[in-house]
Amino acid sequence: MTREECAALDAADPLKHFRDEFALPDGMIYLTGNSLGAMPKSAPERISAAVNDEWANRLVGGWNSARWYNQPTDLGDGIAPLIGAGPGQVVVGDSTSVVIYKAMAAAARLRPDRRVIVSDLSNFPTDRYVVEGLVKGLGGGYEIRDIGDLGTALGDDVAAVLLSQVDYRTGARRDMAAVTAQVHAAGAIMVWDLCHSVGAFPVDVGDADFALGCTYKYVNGGPGSPAFLYVAPRHQADAENVLSGWYGHAEPFAFEPHFRPAEGVRRFAVSTPHVLSGVALSAALEMWKRVDLHAVRAKSVALTSLFIDLVEAGGDRGLTLASPRDPDERGSQVSFLHPDGYPVMRALIDRGVHGDYRAPSLLRFGFAPLYLRYVDVWDAAALIGEVLDKELWRDERYAQRLAVT
Amino acid sequence: MTREECAALDAADPLKHFRDEFALPDGMIYLTGNSLGAMPKSAPERISAAVNDEWANRLVGGWNSARWYNQPTDLGDGIAPLIGAGPGQVVVGDSTSVVIYKAMAAAARLRPDRRVIVSDLSNFPTDRYVVEGLVKGLGGGYEIRDIGDLGTALGDDVAAVLLSQVDYRTGARRDMAAVTAQVHAAGAIMVWDLCHSVGAFPVDVGDADFALGCTYKYVNGGPGSPAFLYVAPRHQADAENVLSGWYGHAEPFAFEPHFRPAEGVRRFAVSTPHVLSGVALSAALEMWKRVDLHAVRAKSVALTSLFIDLVEAGGDRGLTLASPRDPDERGSQVSFLHPDGYPVMRALIDRGVHGDYRAPSLLRFGFAPLYLRYVDVWDAAALIGEVLDKELWRDERYAQRLAVT
Repeated sequence: MTREECAALDAADPLKHFRDEFALPDGMIYLTGNSLGAMPKSAPERISAAVNDEWANRLVGGWNSARWYNQPTDLGDGIAPLIGAGPGQVVVGDSTSVVIYKAMAAAARLRPDRRVIVSDLSNFPTDRYVVEGLVKGLGGGYEIRDIGDLGTALGDDVAAVLLSQVDYRTGARRDMAAVTAQVHAAGAIMVWDLCHSVGAFPVDVGDADFALGCTYKYVNGGPGSPAFLYVAPRHQADAENVLSGWYGHAEPFAFEPHFRPAEGVRRFAVSTPHVLSGVALSAALEMWKRVDLHAVRAKSVALTSLFIDLVEAGGDRGLTLASPRDPDERGSQVSFLHPDGYPVMRALIDRGVHGDYRAPSLLRFGFAPLYLRYVDVWDAAALIGEVLDKELWRDERYAQRLAVT
Repeated sequence: MTREECAALDAADPLKHFRDEFALPDGMIYLTGNSLGAMPKSAPERISAAVNDEWANRLVGGWNSARWYNQPTDLGDGIAPLIGAGPGQVVVGDSTSVVIYKAMAAAARLRPDRRVIVSDLSNFPTDRYVVEGLVKGLGGGYEIRDIGDLGTALGDDVAAVLLSQVDYRTGARRDMAAVTAQVHAAGAIMVWDLCHSVGAFPVDVGDADFALGCTYKYVNGGPGSPAFLYVAPRHQADAENVLSGWYGHAEPFAFEPHFRPAEGVRRFAVSTPHVLSGVALSAALEMWKRVDLHAVRAKSVALTSLFIDLVEAGGDRGLTLASPRDPDERGSQVSFLHPDGYPVMRALIDRGVHGDYRAPSLLRFGFAPLYLRYVDVWDAAALIGEVLDKELWRDERYAQRLAVT
């Protein structure tokens, strides 16, 4: 594949006009959209309105006139189509870790006679950390079972299973429907972490009991934008939110002395929404209304496959593919192992190829189809080849560690 | 006191120049700063920089170069002087309800042989709701004891006490040092809710074990700005955060398989900070560095006392003072009861006097000394007199309920 052929693919790309809707720095090939998505150009204006009109002029009137009161469910209804859910099934607020806690505590309470929570040592660390804290707080003999093989982990003692659909390191993608069915066959509650799925391809929550994720990766909601929680309609009347703050109350502004949960998914709201972070997300969700998720997936498969092909065409240069070769088994991310991964990534970033590094040797490259072009993939592969072939990463500048890597 | 005398007080006010640093709509007498503070004029520029430079241009580089990574403790160090705490003792993030949960769970774990959590039926509802959810989640025979008299509630079964320093309805203010000593004498952990204190007057956490609060009232951090948590240095090595997300890990970016708490207060951080909401708060905290809190308290006492005097000078018009008459016993808020409180407040707001209403009959007026003038108090009292004397609130428009009241 030549660069000209890539340019031809870009010209024919049905998603090509979305790139113009993002702010992208000149000369940056941004392959870290799986960590923090790029900024929709509509975001600054939306945020400015929230600050200079809603906060400055309406003040407490914004609760009604700017719909701050409804932000958790308004944003939730915006997320729903991205994960195959319907209106009234998703609530937005809090950070991902807090949402994991809410979901897992509720899941455990739906199976009160069982004491095992299943997770995966390869799961994103915060998923595991949060479950450790939950189990510690619960007392009562709860334990965590780490799976290698899900089949052997599932027994009639398992209350709930928490898994990421897409592995944050390798980009490997699980079959949600099959796993959910397997977990349900064992009588357990299935909770999906969709952080690396939502906005990367069409997700279908299907029969899942709970699903959650962040909104600042492929969704492009901005740094630290609030997380989402899907609650299956069949659980909405019974599932309990142990983080029972006033915002999940049936009548928050009645200031009743005791907690009485709201009807529906709103009971999983906790407290005053972080309005400014939420409005940034709302700008992104307006854009998503116009996006064909199947076109996103088709382009994602094409971009990731092209990237693997072009990088590997350069021969063995110390790189080992860490992602599944079969695109059906991948999310929208490609990872390679390299024994000197840290300086290699620093050298790439210095040349405009922005992936990221995860210790001890992982190079991650995310592909956000809304703003990446085929020529970007071609250019990135060429620069990777140059850095490796010429061993440019041996420059001592690249050995120096940054605070956050 | 005449309006001219009020204008003279304004001219001599050592805090008068701060009013110019806030955006205040023309014709609005804003007495709801105890609910949502006004916008510092520096906030839009700070937020715009975070959006248009940090997010748009630096993207993931913002973690290092824009100090997103440090936001929870940077903001915490900015809050600390407002509550008599030092650097490294406060962390900012999450909503108030989530922070209450973290604090109370940690407090209960510091007294593992005790099973009672004391709260107050007059406490802000979310404080009570969160403790109800926590107790439900804990299992193990925990119970809540509601106090009338703290002395009779305290026994050797009490693990922790959660109280608000300032009552959100009446503005009544507790003696923190005396109550903390009383609670410690009973061997329990003292957790203070400072939502209606911080930024209203100088707070001294003193010997408190934990203290927390929101930052969008008198602190002026913006709608839904993140909450803070103070952890006494003596507890920082032992206190456990059951919301053990990756951001409280000793090395968040090491992605270790098991949770290992950070040293110091950072272990109470949970997850990726809501960056845009945090930067709005940072603008307010920059202003607070220049504020003399003792001048704030002196003006607050003068404003609230003047308001009571002027309103009551009109004679009995169905109003009953619900706040303490002794300023030493008040925060920066004055509340009156009126049997037709809802339409009265609607009529006041229609004339530019923005207080708020809490069912069934409470009119609340907050006094933020950084941006309120003595003439504002005079004008508000005059308009209250007009609305009551002429019974303007009987206009049927004011009976109509808004979604959020």
